[in-house]
Amino acid sequence: MNDSLNDRLEGTLPITTADEAASVIDDGMTVAISGFGSVGYPKVVPPALDGHESLTILSAGSVGGEIDETLVNSETINRRAHFQSRPAIRDAINAGEIAFFDRHVSQFGDELRFGGGFNVDVAIIEAVSAGENWFIASTSIGHAPSIVQAADRLILEVNHAQPIALKTIHDVYERASPPHREPIPIDGPTDRIGDARIEFDPDALEAVVETDTADDPYTFRTPTPIDQAIAANLGSFLESEIQSNSMFSSAVSLQFGVGSLGNALMGALTEIEFGDRTVVYFGEVFQDGLLDMLDSGQLAGASATSLALSQTGQKRFFDAIDQYATDVVLRPADISNNPILIERFGVVGVNSAIEVDCYGNANATHIGGTHMINGIGGGGDFVRNSRLSIIALPSTAADGAVSRVVPMTPHVDHTEHDVSVVVTEHGVADLRGCSPRERATKIISIADPSFQNDLEAYRHRAVNANGQTPHDLETVFDWHIDWGK
Amino acid sequence: MNDSLNDRLEGTLPITTADEAASVIDDGMTVAISGFGSVGYPKVVPPALDGHESLTILSAGSVGGEIDETLVNSETINRRAHFQSRPAIRDAINAGEIAFFDRHVSQFGDELRFGGGFNVDVAIIEAVSAGENWFIASTSIGHAPSIVQAADRLILEVNHAQPIALKTIHDVYERASPPHREPIPIDGPTDRIGDARIEFDPDALEAVVETDTADDPYTFRTPTPIDQAIAANLGSFLESEIQSNSMFSSAVSLQFGVGSLGNALMGALTEIEFGDRTVVYFGEVFQDGLLDMLDSGQLAGASATSLALSQTGQKRFFDAIDQYATDVVLRPADISNNPILIERFGVVGVNSAIEVDCYGNANATHIGGTHMINGIGGGGDFVRNSRLSIIALPSTAADGAVSRVVPMTPHVDHTEHDVSVVVTEHGVADLRGCSPRERATKIISIADPSFQNDLEAYRHRAVNANGQTPHDLETVFDWHIDWGK
Repeated sequence: MNDSLNDRLEGTLPITTADEAASVIDDGMTVAISGFGSVGYPKVVPPALDGHESLTILSAGSVGGEIDETLVNSETINRRAHFQSRPAIRDAINAGEIAFFDRHVSQFGDELRFGGGFNVDVAIIEAVSAGENWFIASTSIGHAPSIVQAADRLILEVNHAQPIALKTIHDVYERASPPHREPIPIDGPTDRIGDARIEFDPDALEAVVETDTADDPYTFRTPTPIDQAIAANLGSFLESEIQSNSMFSSAVSLQFGVGSLGNALMGALTEIEFGDRTVVYFGEVFQDGLLDMLDSGQLAGASATSLALSQTGQKRFFDAIDQYATDVVLRPADISNNPILIERFGVVGVNSAIEVDCYGNANATHIGGTHMINGIGGGGDFVRNSRLSIIALPSTAADGAVSRVVPMTPHVDHTEHDVSVVVTEHGVADLRGCSPRERATKIISIADPSFQNDLEAYRHRAVNANGQTPHDLETVFDWHIDWGK
Repeated sequence: MNDSLNDRLEGTLPITTADEAASVIDDGMTVAISGFGSVGYPKVVPPALDGHESLTILSAGSVGGEIDETLVNSETINRRAHFQSRPAIRDAINAGEIAFFDRHVSQFGDELRFGGGFNVDVAIIEAVSAGENWFIASTSIGHAPSIVQAADRLILEVNHAQPIALKTIHDVYERASPPHREPIPIDGPTDRIGDARIEFDPDALEAVVETDTADDPYTFRTPTPIDQAIAANLGSFLESEIQSNSMFSSAVSLQFGVGSLGNALMGALTEIEFGDRTVVYFGEVFQDGLLDMLDSGQLAGASATSLALSQTGQKRFFDAIDQYATDVVLRPADISNNPILIERFGVVGVNSAIEVDCYGNANATHIGGTHMINGIGGGGDFVRNSRLSIIALPSTAADGAVSRVVPMTPHVDHTEHDVSVVVTEHGVADLRGCSPRERATKIISIADPSFQNDLEAYRHRAVNANGQTPHDLETVFDWHIDWGK
């Protein structure tokens, strides 16, 4: 053991190299890894698996190129779940070379532990500190506690490049197993109910590998004029809603989806007049957009499972981590994304999609209905369980050549039963209480004007065929067929 | 007040006629009514609304012909939510004459109370007993507590034809409002945590009307050979799953969907070898199929929000209600269908659908993608949150002329992210951990043999076009277009 590293390691640990740790893993095994929002994933043991074959790799959220590029190029992975976000693996999945299983974030831990179709042989987890029967997770917690419970054996990567002070923002509460699972004893979105440490069976610990490699996190684009227009429409709608709904009289809990649009929308919150309401963030990722709001005191706190910050955002956060630690809490993803907590706190959830149809169904995963982008991630947890569920998206893609408002989405991730409001740069469609026919009129009105005539023509053709949700199945995918050529 | 009725009425109540009670309601008002599983709905005030115009009628579940036939034929209703199940209203909805909004059962109460697009003017609730600031609900509880909270004014129908002993099975627990909503303090599926009474603001009580009209409940068909084959396949699968999954080592919580197939599947549970496990039912409706299991002691208890029994089943239950009261509990629907309770108890949910696609998406509401049957009801609550989520359906409809396994469902109520297993009379497709391409092979193998060649041809055509979820959008709805002609 290296003495200089003593502040991070405690007790007698099986410290070894990445290659030796990787030798614990046999071809064909199922390996579950930490990582969420492209941070907090293991960085040196996975690349050492190059040369292995037929591995199943499971992660609750997105991870770095060390896994989803290196191990794709080496043809090491043949099955992957439940989320990914890199072009290399995306291409292999869409070519049918890697079998991909795509499931809600909230369910990942239970899927691994209770008959979800996977038996986890080995866990590889990034930590900032470890002892003989515990570790402290890194820039994301994700489903690390459940992964450790599900796996037969454990490999820890203790990363010296991640601030050890991360432990001050971790709140790990572990739930009992069904059917004797207790209520989650939490009163408010940013309450702390657990400890920093995640415990494990010391007999399972096979290897501890020390690293000092930084995360390979997201880069967020500078908000575009369209992002800003969407944010302005969302802001006006939220202000009015917050005034009129008694549920928001003293406090508002907000969630925004992962990505550049979500980040831009978070940033635009500073424009909203919340009055003297307590505003908190209860989501899965903490992104750059929230930093200004926290700094100004407009945001009272934030709960997430991942510090999905850009490199600039990480520096800003890490440099003042002691201050942020009073208001920011990272939780396991079965708490951050828990359906009932989203419901109990009356969360306003703002998520994006590839496209929406005239009736409020949303496709968040498959371009053209066939080609996977990232996976559903936590979007379904929040869209389905938020008290006010908003889909925000630009009205077009491909420089205006493709409408994101379509007659029918060829893949549905969020159903009409779950989506209450749709926002584009052209306005807000409030679908609450409306029949599908009424929704169609509202949603078409916020499509790009250059597509509205065609959408109206479709709507008229469909209504002639009658039904609660009118469609003309002979022409419903004409646009998608055309765009796919 | 009629003295002979004193055992049901307490205090000074505004007892009146149905017509006088109906005069409280003005044209254009929004009226929320009790009723779930076609039982426990108000029976005399709604028909007295004939002559009114432009009413919005809200119910959490299905109600009787007194509402969804009489008030449809009289053109009294112009908007309806969240569920219905009678041909008269179905036809009016599909013709676009009544605007219908279709939402998950679990969310109905909050939708009414916290900005779901409706402002409830008057509630009409069936009760078995009432006082000046309380009542006891009838054969269903549904969202009666939330309806009363949401409504400005209240009309009670006290029904002398319903046994007053129903109070012994009611357990009404009311939750606080978000964002300060507490955890639900329940430890097991059949625990009691509340009282029989539902309280209300006495100033809101406009009228109490006495009735003695029986429910107009479901009729269940005798199980067909196909129902029995589905039940046999489901039974074998469940037995094996229960043996192998540690979560089921001491207890199993089951839920079955509403309707004849669900009822037949419940009845077939007696064939399953559960060993010494405690078996309980945690669902939304208690149907005839559970009576034999309770009588034999195989089922330790049942939790639901509605006694959706046939007339024969009602008689059998009511005649021995004191015995059944020890093991059967009726709850408000935000408890019976609560996402987190379904998850905490590790429920095995078995629900049906109109059709499934090759990839595991299910359409439970729209024939041909356009024509509404009943609404999503509680199906989405259980499919989405069960630890093991099973869709059980016959492989064909229309006497074998239509395949219920299709290339793509033209409406999606349960997404591929929520469905773990599909069962037909031809077998079981276990989709857990599988990519969409793998799922397609499994699901096609349990389609009706007469459609398997065409499905396989579609699958090959689609795979040539590549993608995570291969499709050929030019031919994907050929069957539906043909069936619709």
